[in-house]
Parts: sequence; C-alpha cells; structure tokens
Amino acid sequence: IRKDILKELSNINRYPESSCFYLRRQLAKNNAVGTEQIVFGNGSDELITLTLRAFTDRDDEVIIAYPTFLMYEIQANACGAQVVRVPLKNFRYSLSDIAASVTAKTKIIFIANPDNPTGTYITHTQLENFINKIPRNILLYLDEAYFEFAPADFPRSKELLARRGNIVIARTFSKAYGLAGLRIGYGITSPQIASSLNTIREPFNINRFAQVAAVAGLKNKAFLKKVTSLVAREKKYFYAQFEKLGISFVESAANFILVDFHTEAKAFCDYLLKNGIIVRELSGWGFKNFFRVTISTHKENKKFITLLAKYRSYNS
Amino acid sequence: IRKDILKELSNINRYPESSCFYLRRQLAKNNAVGTEQIVFGNGSDELITLTLRAFTDRDDEVIIAYPTFLMYEIQANACGAQVVRVPLKNFRYSLSDIAASVTAKTKIIFIANPDNPTGTYITHTQLENFINKIPRNILLYLDEAYFEFAPADFPRSKELLARRGNIVIARTFSKAYGLAGLRIGYGITSPQIASSLNTIREPFNINRFAQVAAVAGLKNKAFLKKVTSLVAREKKYFYAQFEKLGISFVESAANFILVDFHTEAKAFCDYLLKNGIIVRELSGWGFKNFFRVTISTHKENKKFITLLAKYRSYNS
Repeated sequence: IRKDILKELSNINRYPESSCFYLRRQLAKNNAVGTEQIVFGNGSDELITLTLRAFTDRDDEVIIAYPTFLMYEIQANACGAQVVRVPLKNFRYSLSDIAASVTAKTKIIFIANPDNPTGTYITHTQLENFINKIPRNILLYLDEAYFEFAPADFPRSKELLARRGNIVIARTFSKAYGLAGLRIGYGITSPQIASSLNTIREPFNINRFAQVAAVAGLKNKAFLKKVTSLVAREKKYFYAQFEKLGISFVESAANFILVDFHTEAKAFCDYLLKNGIIVRELSGWGFKNFFRVTISTHKENKKFITLLAKYRSYNS
Repeated sequence: IRKDILKELSNINRYPESSCFYLRRQLAKNNAVGTEQIVFGNGSDELITLTLRAFTDRDDEVIIAYPTFLMYEIQANACGAQVVRVPLKNFRYSLSDIAASVTAKTKIIFIANPDNPTGTYITHTQLENFINKIPRNILLYLDEAYFEFAPADFPRSKELLARRGNIVIARTFSKAYGLAGLRIGYGITSPQIASSLNTIREPFNINRFAQVAAVAGLKNKAFLKKVTSLVAREKKYFYAQFEKLGISFVESAANFILVDFHTEAKAFCDYLLKNGIIVRELSGWGFKNFFRVTISTHKENKKFITLLAKYRSYNS
C-alpha cells in the first residue's frame, strides 16, 4: 500500500477516476458479481445516505433497530423519513419484531450484521426466514462492515441478493483492511439500485489514494488472514481476562466487544483516555454502564487489561 | 506535501479527525473568520449537495443559470427542488434576469463566480448591487472554486457574508492548490449555516491525506503565487495564439478558456484525446461548437496549440 500510494503521489493534481475502474474490476472478480452491481461510498456511511436519498421521501417509513449504529437514524431524519424504532432484545436484533413493524409505508429496513455496538449477529437461516416474510418492494440494507470477522453460519448475503434483488450489501475497507483514514466503502446490489445510487453520487467521491490502497489490500490475502486470525485469538484473550475479573460481556462476531461495567462506565473511559486508550463510552446509545472496546495488538490489549484490573482494584 | 503524506501513512488505519482541527484553524486564520464559520466537503461539490439537502424541500425553488456547472441542477433534482433556469447572456450570468426570477418559493440562488465553463465573472460592485435587491431569506451560494485566478475587482465575498449572513462561499483545493485527487473543499458561511451543514455531513468525510496536504498547501504561499502567475502568463500565450489562428474565445477569469471552434468540436476533441490531451467537449452544455481547455504548463500548452494548428490546416 505504501508503494502504491507513493506511485500515486504524482497524480494528486488530477481528479480521481470516477468509476474506480481497477478497484471495481477486482471487487467484482473477488465477489463473483457483475461490475455494474458495485457502488462506492466515501466510507460505507456514505452508502447509507445515498440509499436513503435515492429511495425515501418525506413520510416514508424506515425500520431501524434501537440502539444500533447511529448513522441510519441521523440520515433518515435528514431525509425527512419516519423512523420506526424496534428495540433490541437481549442485545440482539429481533427479526420477528421488525417483521411485525412493517406497514404499507415501509421503504427500507436497516440491519447491521454483525451489529455495532453489540457485536451480535444474525445467521444465514435466520435472515433467510426473515426475508421470506418481508414484501419484496421493501429495500433491505444489510450493513456488513464487520463481516470479515464473523463465524461460518453468517449469511451468504450475495445468494440472497441474487434471489431477491432488492438488497444493498454494504461493506468497508475501514475495519479488516485497516484503511479507515482513507475513506472507502462499497455496496453490492442489483444493477438497477446501483444505477440509482450512482445518479446522485458525487462523481469524484473516492479519492485516488483510497482507490489504489483498496486494490492493494484486496490482492494481499495474507494480510486479511493475519488480521482476522489476530482478532479471533485476541478476542479469546479478552474473554478469558474478563471472566477472571468477573466482568460480563456480550459475545462478539466483530472486532470489538461490548463490556458490561456493572456501574457507570464514563469515569473509567476517562481514566483510559488519560492513559492513551480510547474506548467507546455508550451512554448515547442508552447503555450507560457499558463500553465498547476494539481489539488491537496483543501488546495494546494487555495494556488495556492491566489498566482495567488496576482501576477496579482501586475502585471496589 | 509529499513529506506530510509520508508521515501520515502510519495512521491510515485510524479514522480521520472529524472536525479537521488543524486545517480549520489554518483556514480561519488565513481568512480572518471564526473556526465555527468553516465547513468541509469531500470536494466542494459535496457542499452543493449538503446545502441543498439542508435547506430545500420538495417544491422549493432554486435559481440556477443555464448553462453553468452541472452539479447544481443534478443535486437540486435529486432533492426534489424545482429548478428555475436563467439563461446566460453573451456567456455571462444575467443578474437582472436572476433577480426578476425570484418568487416567494425561492430558497437558494447558485452563482458560479468565476463561472464554469465560460470563465466569465461578476465584479464586487455588480454582486453588491444584486444582493441589495434579493430578499435576505434567500440563501446565496457563491461557488468560488476558481477565485484564486480572478482579477482585482472580484467580489470581496467575506465582506458581503459579514453583512448579510445568509451566504455560503464555496472554495476548493482542487484547482489552484492542485489537490483534486485528494478531494477537499470548504465553505465559509455563518455559524448557523455551518452548524446545519455539519448536522447532516458524514462525520469522517475528509480523509487524512487531504487534511494534511491542504494544511501544507495553505502554508506554502510561494506555490500558490507560482501557480497563479503561470496561469496568468500562459493565458496570454493562449489568447495570442488563438488570435493568430483566427479562433474566437471568451476571456477568462479562471484557469481554463472557453473556445469557439466555429464548427462542431467533437471530432477535434477526439483527435486531441488520441494525442494524450483531454479537453472538455461541451455539447452537454448546449455549446456543441465549443470546448473548454484548461491552462497547463507551457510545454503542454504549446503541444496543444501545435495540434490545434495542425488539425485546422488538415481540415480547412
């Protein structure tokens, strides 16, 4: 990636390639889909905005779990859509409650899978059964930002897309590929939906460095394997340490863990910040006793566990 | 810029700084405005979209010259706003016709100054007189993507903003600063408008490299001077060569020239493309006998003139 970025430096005065030609070709190949089924966002969060702008109008309903990734609701409100909140049950999306919330006005259902910030996930069978109950005119937005970390029974969403059509599968280079600073996400969808999203997309929304870095990332399969193996191994380390310390957590299919601090977590998050570690404090999600910690290298994880143990021994 | 990008390479796995702290501070200082008056876009074209999304609703009217930069109309249509087209007169915005088109439903007036693709511009006095005629509740969107190349009587738009408030001044690092491949533009506006645009902006819309490169660009005043001097000098070269060849053109306040080819320009544009030069063919703007050529280095400009002379000697 370093090498490709250095090579691209001499082109920074030129506008980026609007269609992301090389990246599109590589992604289509890796995913066995047509090049016309791919759409790019300035981070996958831009795909949320584009989908809402393309397919909702004032007073249309969109179904969003609560709490979940906040951008669905923020951008739905910006579009003037009516947000129908469906509460999580035991930190999980309740697909039966979501199905029961569908009305004639429902335009889009957002599903973060694995979910953020809980890390829980929906299996292929669960999603397939759900889809069979949902009218085909409703667009399903499957946000798979963390899918590279998920277990084997995770949905084969491209199969579901091939059958149903009316699905956007959103993915990103910000998590497993480690390119969050460059901003690039992509959607896999039907050619019709891709064409609608491309109509309202700004033509140069993906910068040059993001395009070359993403191509390099896709080609380096050993790196992806290394990252996902590290996360799997370190997740077990975290689980074992939490159990040793008597701390509850939600089992995660992603690269972070939702931790139940049993008491208000804010002071501890501030303590970590002073020690150079940022975790996500979750009072804005209604989880004021929780925080979300992202899995890092073993050295950083160990530092976090040491601070956690120290803080608890002082404050108990 | 190369040095700063290399330094930033080690952070590409981290999300960018959402508020663009250092860049915001530098821009506020250079422009003598408050940091809370600045808003960033993934290219200045994102600011067009954000402004329309924040301030127009279905059936609101927006006034847009015709032809001009195409994104105003594309994004206004995507927002469901009603586009009121006001034709150019002799390649110039007609401010009196625009003022006469205002209705109770007018929400935004877009003014590209200097205009793209004509290169014509509106002076400070003309804009000031126009503003005095326009109700204050109408937002004026002043697209100044090329302002660094404009003459001395160009509007002092920050003065007008300080007096009127309801103005967005949109600028970019893609033209004079040569950073089009990185995607970064900015708006200078009132704190209230900036806050509205920030509410619907994706929080990480400006990538890390764009942030550090723009800061480096702003600090290197010699580079900006070099670019604008080069463009001024080469523009005179183009004018002289066009006159020698008997070719009409529109005098430009930007870094490009609208050239009247007298006959359909497409075949000539294709000929240039085969020779490694891209100019903008303008049939999509209703100017099928015209093309827009961007001013480059003297060597590239000379190559263009040589090809133009050659093509005309073959085809006349």
